[in-house]
Amino acid sequence: MNQTIESLLKHKSIRKFRNDPVNADLLNLLVSAGQSAASSSFFQAVTIIRITDHEIRRQLASIAGNQEQVKFAAEFLIFCADFNRSKKCCEGNGQTATEGFTEQFIVSTVDAALYAQNVVVAAESVGLGICYIGAIRNNPKAASNLLHLPQNVYPVFGLCIGYPAEDPAVKPRLPISVVLKENNYNSQGDASEIAAYDRILKKYYENRSDNQKSQTWSGQMTELLQKEARPHMRGFLTAQGFKMK
Amino acid sequence: MNQTIESLLKHKSIRKFRNDPVNADLLNLLVSAGQSAASSSFFQAVTIIRITDHEIRRQLASIAGNQEQVKFAAEFLIFCADFNRSKKCCEGNGQTATEGFTEQFIVSTVDAALYAQNVVVAAESVGLGICYIGAIRNNPKAASNLLHLPQNVYPVFGLCIGYPAEDPAVKPRLPISVVLKENNYNSQGDASEIAAYDRILKKYYENRSDNQKSQTWSGQMTELLQKEARPHMRGFLTAQGFKMK
Repeated sequence: MNQTIESLLKHKSIRKFRNDPVNADLLNLLVSAGQSAASSSFFQAVTIIRITDHEIRRQLASIAGNQEQVKFAAEFLIFCADFNRSKKCCEGNGQTATEGFTEQFIVSTVDAALYAQNVVVAAESVGLGICYIGAIRNNPKAASNLLHLPQNVYPVFGLCIGYPAEDPAVKPRLPISVVLKENNYNSQGDASEIAAYDRILKKYYENRSDNQKSQTWSGQMTELLQKEARPHMRGFLTAQGFKMK
Repeated sequence: MNQTIESLLKHKSIRKFRNDPVNADLLNLLVSAGQSAASSSFFQAVTIIRITDHEIRRQLASIAGNQEQVKFAAEFLIFCADFNRSKKCCEGNGQTATEGFTEQFIVSTVDAALYAQNVVVAAESVGLGICYIGAIRNNPKAASNLLHLPQNVYPVFGLCIGYPAEDPAVKPRLPISVVLKENNYNSQGDASEIAAYDRILKKYYENRSDNQKSQTWSGQMTELLQKEARPHMRGFLTAQGFKMK
């Protein structure tokens, strides 16, 4: 096993950071690593907003359920799916661009995620810690207003980056046999493997250093899936130009 | 710069592969690296279908516009966004699960992309080459039937993995200044930077070893955005349970 894979396997989200800044050259290098990710049809449909303004950080933290790390991480980046840039190019060439297709939503969302994960891998490879912040989607309209996002751009998630001030244990994942199938989707036998995993995850939650709880994965899924999942997203996206045609 | 970042910066899609297989333990390690990626609310909303059956490979290659590498890469994995697994857990606990929310579509699509990118980074770190295959979305219904995907699971993209039989140049990306903004979306000055980038990319396309063409990025975007983008996606996803509520 090489250092890269070792670093990938050690991933854990970091929510407490030291005060040390991330050097500007290093940040540039992390973003360059993101730039190198694959992009569907080479749309490069990503824009990153780096938040250095304290008041904007405070408001984004509030949108994200008061997650303190949004305020205090050395860097906080918002990854946006962006079809505005390519559309402007098309219009600059005197043509009308198609827009609002579900496919374009997928392409730009995937582009943003691949890009971000490269930034994450690069960051963790130099000893930085990260935490994705999906909770900016609690109020994507407010976040978009704050960041002056134009039509055909939406904030997919935020990303905190900084030097870790904690060292939590790696969280156990579902067994590979449940996630990796051969030739077709065959979930036979998964239930008993998930039951075994439930016991492993429960033990992890009971014994971890912070935010201990007694919960299984199945229990967590059951709880989450009884709630409506950000039902405002569809209306927000439609208004933002992602009409899901 | 360390080896991990060096490897990220060297990424290029590989479409011609040697015959050598990927060792089973290595494949397992790559998938483990994928497992380690962050997951929104820990849904772990990803299922991977590894295609070893030649006839299924052939049919998927045909769906993907006859991309030969789908048939001949040592490994071909289909990354599926999966809300079926968590839903089954919820129902197993006697509860009714919410479904069809746009947010759940985002969560599972992002989970699949983060996971896949970790597999990619791990693969490239050991000298393997990769190529994402978004074109399975040319006919996602046929692909889903082939793979027996249940409701609330959809194929996001495929991934070819194998030992490279070509060594193309790295494709120049948009300048960082166009992609990375501070505190808000401000595209002033981007047009002239994109014009400069157009010249760089045109030179790359004219001089690359394979599939030479004379095209700018703006030109490519203009061409792509005049076509409807897989207009069947919405209907397919709705029928598949992703109702975009």
